[in-house]
Amino acid sequence: MLNGEKKIERPLRWGMVGGGRLGQVGYKHRIGALRDNTAFQLVAGAFDIDPARGKDFGMNIGVAEERCYADYKTMFAEEAKRVDGLEVVSIATPNGTHYEITKAALHAGLHVICEKPLFFTSEEVLEIKELAEEKGKIVGVSYGFSGNQLLLQMRAMVEKGEIGDVRLVELQYTHGFNATDDGDKFSDAQKWRVDPKIAGPSYVLGDLSTHTYYMSQLILPHMKIEKLLCDRQSFISSRAPLEDNAYVLMHYDNGAVGRLWTSSVDAGCMDGHRIRIVGSKASLEWWDSKPNDLKYEVQGQPIQTLVRSMPYLDESCNADERLAALHQEGLSESWSNIYLKFAIAIDAKMRGDQETLNTLIYPDINAGLEGVRWIENCVRSADQGSVWIDFESNKNTVLQ
Amino acid sequence: MLNGEKKIERPLRWGMVGGGRLGQVGYKHRIGALRDNTAFQLVAGAFDIDPARGKDFGMNIGVAEERCYADYKTMFAEEAKRVDGLEVVSIATPNGTHYEITKAALHAGLHVICEKPLFFTSEEVLEIKELAEEKGKIVGVSYGFSGNQLLLQMRAMVEKGEIGDVRLVELQYTHGFNATDDGDKFSDAQKWRVDPKIAGPSYVLGDLSTHTYYMSQLILPHMKIEKLLCDRQSFISSRAPLEDNAYVLMHYDNGAVGRLWTSSVDAGCMDGHRIRIVGSKASLEWWDSKPNDLKYEVQGQPIQTLVRSMPYLDESCNADERLAALHQEGLSESWSNIYLKFAIAIDAKMRGDQETLNTLIYPDINAGLEGVRWIENCVRSADQGSVWIDFESNKNTVLQ
Amino acid sequence: MLNGEKKIERPLRWGMVGGGRLGQVGYKHRIGALRDNTAFQLVAGAFDIDPARGKDFGMNIGVAEERCYADYKTMFAEEAKRVDGLEVVSIATPNGTHYEITKAALHAGLHVICEKPLFFTSEEVLEIKELAEEKGKIVGVSYGFSGNQLLLQMRAMVEKGEIGDVRLVELQYTHGFNATDDGDKFSDAQKWRVDPKIAGPSYVLGDLSTHTYYMSQLILPHMKIEKLLCDRQSFISSRAPLEDNAYVLMHYDNGAVGRLWTSSVDAGCMDGHRIRIVGSKASLEWWDSKPNDLKYEVQGQPIQTLVRSMPYLDESCNADERLAALHQEGLSESWSNIYLKFAIAIDAKMRGDQETLNTLIYPDINAGLEGVRWIENCVRSADQGSVWIDFESNKNTVLQ
Amino acid sequence: MLNGEKKIERPLRWGMVGGGRLGQVGYKHRIGALRDNTAFQLVAGAFDIDPARGKDFGMNIGVAEERCYADYKTMFAEEAKRVDGLEVVSIATPNGTHYEITKAALHAGLHVICEKPLFFTSEEVLEIKELAEEKGKIVGVSYGFSGNQLLLQMRAMVEKGEIGDVRLVELQYTHGFNATDDGDKFSDAQKWRVDPKIAGPSYVLGDLSTHTYYMSQLILPHMKIEKLLCDRQSFISSRAPLEDNAYVLMHYDNGAVGRLWTSSVDAGCMDGHRIRIVGSKASLEWWDSKPNDLKYEVQGQPIQTLVRSMPYLDESCNADERLAALHQEGLSESWSNIYLKFAIAIDAKMRGDQETLNTLIYPDINAGLEGVRWIENCVRSADQGSVWIDFESNKNTVLQ
Ligand SMILES: NC(=O)c1ccc[n+]([C@@H]2O[C@H](COP(=O)([O-])OP(=O)(O)OC[C@H]3O[C@@H](n4cnc5c(N)ncnc54)[C@H](O)[C@@H]3O)[C@@H](O)[C@H]2O)c1
Ligand SMILES: NC(=O)c1ccc[n+]([C@@H]2O[C@H](COP(=O)([O-])OP(=O)(O)OC[C@H]3O[C@@H](n4cnc5c(N)ncnc54)[C@H](O)[C@@H]3O)[C@@H](O)[C@H]2O)c1
Ligand SMILES: NC(=O)c1ccc[n+]([C@@H]2O[C@H](COP(=O)([O-])OP(=O)(O)OC[C@H]3O[C@@H](n4cnc5c(N)ncnc54)[C@H](O)[C@@H]3O)[C@@H](O)[C@H]2O)c1
Ligand SMILES: NC(=O)c1ccc[n+]([C@@H]2O[C@H](COP(=O)([O-])OP(=O)(O)OC[C@H]3O[C@@H](n4cnc5c(N)ncnc54)[C@H](O)[C@@H]3O)[C@@H](O)[C@H]2O)c1
Repeated sequence: MLNGEKKIERPLRWGMVGGGRLGQVGYKHRIGALRDNTAFQLVAGAFDIDPARGKDFGMNIGVAEERCYADYKTMFAEEAKRVDGLEVVSIATPNGTHYEITKAALHAGLHVICEKPLFFTSEEVLEIKELAEEKGKIVGVSYGFSGNQLLLQMRAMVEKGEIGDVRLVELQYTHGFNATDDGDKFSDAQKWRVDPKIAGPSYVLGDLSTHTYYMSQLILPHMKIEKLLCDRQSFISSRAPLEDNAYVLMHYDNGAVGRLWTSSVDAGCMDGHRIRIVGSKASLEWWDSKPNDLKYEVQGQPIQTLVRSMPYLDESCNADERLAALHQEGLSESWSNIYLKFAIAIDAKMRGDQETLNTLIYPDINAGLEGVRWIENCVRSADQGSVWIDFESNKNTVLQ
Repeated sequence: MLNGEKKIERPLRWGMVGGGRLGQVGYKHRIGALRDNTAFQLVAGAFDIDPARGKDFGMNIGVAEERCYADYKTMFAEEAKRVDGLEVVSIATPNGTHYEITKAALHAGLHVICEKPLFFTSEEVLEIKELAEEKGKIVGVSYGFSGNQLLLQMRAMVEKGEIGDVRLVELQYTHGFNATDDGDKFSDAQKWRVDPKIAGPSYVLGDLSTHTYYMSQLILPHMKIEKLLCDRQSFISSRAPLEDNAYVLMHYDNGAVGRLWTSSVDAGCMDGHRIRIVGSKASLEWWDSKPNDLKYEVQGQPIQTLVRSMPYLDESCNADERLAALHQEGLSESWSNIYLKFAIAIDAKMRGDQETLNTLIYPDINAGLEGVRWIENCVRSADQGSVWIDFESNKNTVLQ
Repeated sequence: MLNGEKKIERPLRWGMVGGGRLGQVGYKHRIGALRDNTAFQLVAGAFDIDPARGKDFGMNIGVAEERCYADYKTMFAEEAKRVDGLEVVSIATPNGTHYEITKAALHAGLHVICEKPLFFTSEEVLEIKELAEEKGKIVGVSYGFSGNQLLLQMRAMVEKGEIGDVRLVELQYTHGFNATDDGDKFSDAQKWRVDPKIAGPSYVLGDLSTHTYYMSQLILPHMKIEKLLCDRQSFISSRAPLEDNAYVLMHYDNGAVGRLWTSSVDAGCMDGHRIRIVGSKASLEWWDSKPNDLKYEVQGQPIQTLVRSMPYLDESCNADERLAALHQEGLSESWSNIYLKFAIAIDAKMRGDQETLNTLIYPDINAGLEGVRWIENCVRSADQGSVWIDFESNKNTVLQ
Repeated sequence: MLNGEKKIERPLRWGMVGGGRLGQVGYKHRIGALRDNTAFQLVAGAFDIDPARGKDFGMNIGVAEERCYADYKTMFAEEAKRVDGLEVVSIATPNGTHYEITKAALHAGLHVICEKPLFFTSEEVLEIKELAEEKGKIVGVSYGFSGNQLLLQMRAMVEKGEIGDVRLVELQYTHGFNATDDGDKFSDAQKWRVDPKIAGPSYVLGDLSTHTYYMSQLILPHMKIEKLLCDRQSFISSRAPLEDNAYVLMHYDNGAVGRLWTSSVDAGCMDGHRIRIVGSKASLEWWDSKPNDLKYEVQGQPIQTLVRSMPYLDESCNADERLAALHQEGLSESWSNIYLKFAIAIDAKMRGDQETLNTLIYPDINAGLEGVRWIENCVRSADQGSVWIDFESNKNTVLQ
């Protein structure tokens, strides 16, 4: 059980680009990174597109005035001059800026934790992947939901054959907060999401389903999509060509099939994140309606509910346990788990500890690459008339 | 509220073909038809392919010995001779026999209540439809789940605009009782289900999804599928070409889209019957996990759970209420509701009461036709490589 | 699995007193008794305090005009003259009439199925019990909820030690339909419930908790209450001394303790019927929110949900199964199960088959007696200032 | 919405007594206090009864070596000498040490946050209350569950009359982790809990129910218990006189009644924390099974589920919101909310800002006092034979 004791020698000096006062996701990075003060320390930031607001905000969360920068370029340049300068930066800005900021960060000698969807194209990801390797740096992707340890329980149970051969993969991530177009005009965070220049080639496929797709890969590391078909819609027509609803059908290399539904027009839905894996003997289901429970249904037997924190869970799952039985963990624990792994990866990279890197399971740049490919393939299918296409992937990408 | 008082002048003289001692569905017909003894009276039967067992069974459920027939042909012939002979017959035999038994029944002057899927082809249905009209008889289809009155509540709420414009239709009917092939060899009811000569062109599409598809039509009478795509699998390979799992994507004429999942290999699933209708303002969801509840989710408002039997429900819904608040209704009430409507339809037909027939909502032969077309279209798409096809339908079929 | 085949040689000739057109519980008796037409046939009735309405109603549910009687005395007298006269009568009238009607029925040579609470005092029950024995007749009590077969599953699991030693008994039966006093003035069924002359010494203790108390005895046949304490309230003051809310604490003879809560002012509650039995190793919980599920929680193991109809359930539970897996059973199945057992008991009594009577588990007059004692003891405790009292019981009453 | 920006001028210098490596509750204090690094900074600690382990642990969570003290007395003495010394200390040691450590801390000029149950007797609390006033210090009690903002929603709705007059208060906090006595012998945390010398006069009443009792006071600030009756048991007999199960009945000054159940032998129960408030029109229910949902049941209307974070919630509830819609908050957010209020209280006290102190709702020493009185009264009733007793309380204690 985690209780905040250090997992690396000392906290990493960490900064942020974006994630300012009005940013949606910024706080999640901070609760993830700073939970125990033993993995990261927030020392600098270019938190906002508005420099004054960014500085005021940074100071309010405890960053020294002189390290609240007007923009990321200045930050990277200035911090490089300090002995106690930044070691790692998180990027929590709109999608369209991820590529250039990540590139600049790597050139400035920083490890990077970047928001999803990583970049617009897989070519960009491959280029950055090469650069990161060259620079000896980690690029992590903040799939913050994937830190719920019950996903590791699912992975372990699938691996041990407890559901038999995987046959069906049901994925859903939907909500209804954009059923109308109000936010498209007034909320900053929503305005850019439906603007292809900033959001990239997709809206909900990138915004929501990349999380769920990554989570499915985490659970099913040995399965690859061979073909898929995507049907996407823009119910609010001003969003076209970007979709606010999409259905995907998948065929996997082991003969399994699957579906994914993603939507921001699933009106009223407050618990639309759901993963069901059906095997030849049993099924596993995780649903954010009760994120501390895992349903395990063996055909012909009583339905089982496995509860987070209990000793009967797999060691790999309980290793990430923080709060013990009877205490519900929520999204902040999930992000904390992911950030702790980022810290361990970066620390290992710094120490040249390849063994740790080889076995650590966390969303690295390959996870980011797969997410971008997922979007590319879905959009390609949809744009050709929602036809079946072969899933184009980097053959030698291995997700741990 | 229904309390068993007669809705028609006198109970109809009713018999069954099939539905014998070991038949799966037979008892559901009887609890549906006989609930109050004011709609039907069971007077005759050819209950079993094994005449001796059929007679023994019939006598055990109170049918006079001489009216327990060895086969349906004899029954139709003998009953025709009696003044108190059969008026209506239910057919609860394997699919492959429905067409010929229905035809014989109509020729014998009987009204018919037939199991789903009605027949193998829509041509057969159209032929029988014509014959039924000629003979002035009702042909009903025993979509027994569709009698749950909350479906009428959904229909009323959609009609009144309480969810806005319908955008998404989510349909699911899955279970895991055939995840392995045990039953395919040993259970009579399962053996024929995977034999195309008896089951027809599909397994789960016909066996399960026709129910759910009809229920969606009941809720959304004004929407038609324009295009669909079906991806079907035979996870137990001996079942091929019949599928034990299928995914369908739908495009509707009003711009809505939808999905259906049907499966008998959804291992461990005990509550896989689910309908969610998403509109531009709100969603409605019915789930057999709690069949007396209806979830009504208005975007931006507290989630509402509407409970069967409460005065705030629509009149059309409460008209079918039997048990009053705090008492759970199950499948037998659902079947009773459907059978009561069959009785009212037949009685109206006998009396030439066209007005009643015009407004009564029940699964008539058009519902059967739509079900067969659904299967035909799904199979056609799947067989062409899971491609999009225009939904071929009888343009002037109107489901009430 | 039950499928409607006869369990007794021929259906019993059955009639009703009360349960007319506007009666709340009458229909439940009929769906219970008549389900398969192989246990009972409704041949006569004095359905209503208003003779004309009673006759109209009786004819509407198929009773011959001349056997729709103006009052129960006439019915008992006239039916006694017929060779095909009544054999058994159900009494579904307000509480205050149960004793005299039961007595008259027994004197008329009839078996009786009477509503709960059986009578006003245990002395009355003991007197009638003696009379019934003298007359060789069955007196059953229509605890209609107790037919849910999962209660038998609980009984079997407790018996087999699957929860260890029973320590805690949690009982609840509450609703909120009488949170205000509207119905007390306008609804007939509610008017008499709060009138001690007709309702007897209690309102909700008798109206609701007698069911739950009987269900607890069904599950825990070997445990007896030694002491109890009852705290009752009349939130609508015009109901005093009758309570609309009551709490009871219990001490059992095996060292277990328990609680019961009954209320008709639990505003908004739609699923307040709940039984939890806690043992030294595990707990069992049945809740009418999902009456087809049984929660089995073994300390330290995944939570199990046992689903009605599955082969892993105890034989005694599945013996009452009617609808098979995936089909929800509701209150009507529960009543049908109870009524079938009444039929078997009466048939056995008629045939002098003591062996069947010795092993059949059903709510007989002892169950009625225990219910009346329950009320008496609760009221006695409450009236003395909500103090602990020794539970006074007939030492040699054995509930099967 | 909270996003980590500072609420007080600078973080408070904070330390801990207890809560070391193997302590159960220590980590919860740290995630509560340190979440955003804007309310508290952990600068010192006497974390463990074993000084070496305490120092090793402290250093591992980032405390400077010289400020990891061997015992609290040394810590208070040494820190008092520093200009940057401790300002506030949290006490997370076994119950029996709370009183003396709190007293020493106050004498050392520190604000105190102490674990529940605060002390053994209300006399001790009153004495410390006086001392705290004299010293001008805050004493807070870490009722960590009470930070779930839906409790404030309940408070606001009750206050606004949305459930009518409060009639019934249902409280439960049970689990089954001590159904057997294993832990009593081997686990440190359990060993002292069943030892009256360290635990005080109760086991589960103090360990569990004080939380729930405080939460009920938070929701219902204007209601006081007038009388109560407590029935407690020691199912594991070696625990006697300390109880592992207790039932309490309450009578309130406004005519409401209530119940509480607390247990550590509720075998298998994983979600036994539950509060239901029944009013004359509606009920509110919070259940830790889904701690982000609040059930609002208005009699005669659809059941409503209010979801944490939604704009329709009361301002006082949403003021504590951290994660926005669709993201589940768990126990760590609850503790963070409480600790933030401790910081605000201490800061206000330091600044002499009485206005803030007058309106801030947080578990102060009066909350601790009420908790101790609760235990005292329950034990007194139980020890006299589970009789009704007048609730003895400090008449002028006002809980905000
Ligand atoms: N992992 C998740 O769960 C999750 C959740 C939400 C958003 N996201 C992702 O996070 C990213 C940000 O999304 P959001 O919803 O927080 O957006 P937002 O519009 O709410 O916030 C963006 C923030 O970045 C700042 N910013 C913009 N351009 C900047 C620049 N050039 N330099 C510095 N700061 C700049 C803005 O001032 C703002 O504070 C997106 O890529 C999005 O897909 C991820
Ligand atoms: N509406 C529903 O909910 C539902 C449920 C199950 C089955 N069904 C449908 O009901 C039909 C029967 O399915 P089942 O599962 O009960 O099958 P089954 O194999 O269990 O039972 C078939 C019954 O028909 C009898 N039978 C067969 N051929 C006969 C003949 N020529 N004459 C007289 N009796 C004959 C058999 O003896 C048996 O009693 C199928 O069309 C199926 O699709 C509908
Ligand atoms: N077992 C259950 O689940 C359940 C449920 C509801 C009621 N009950 C019990 O059933 C009994 C009836 O309750 P109810 O709610 O149906 O009452 P109700 O007032 O709704 O109905 C009573 C019926 O009895 C008739 N009646 C009254 N006096 C009569 C008489 N002397 N002769 C013939 N008919 C007479 C009335 O006309 C009416 O039809 C009560 O004892 C009640 O406790 C049991
Ligand atoms: N608020 C809550 O939710 C919650 C939860 C659990 C426990 N508690 C309370 O917290 C307190 C501690 O309980 P626990 O379960 O963590 O106990 P524990 O036995 O698990 O831990 C006690 C810790 O205190 C240390 N300790 C003991 N005596 C000490 C001393 N004199 N000086 C310094 N350190 C000392 C021990 O080394 C250990 O680290 C109790 O009062 C308990 O009631 C509260």
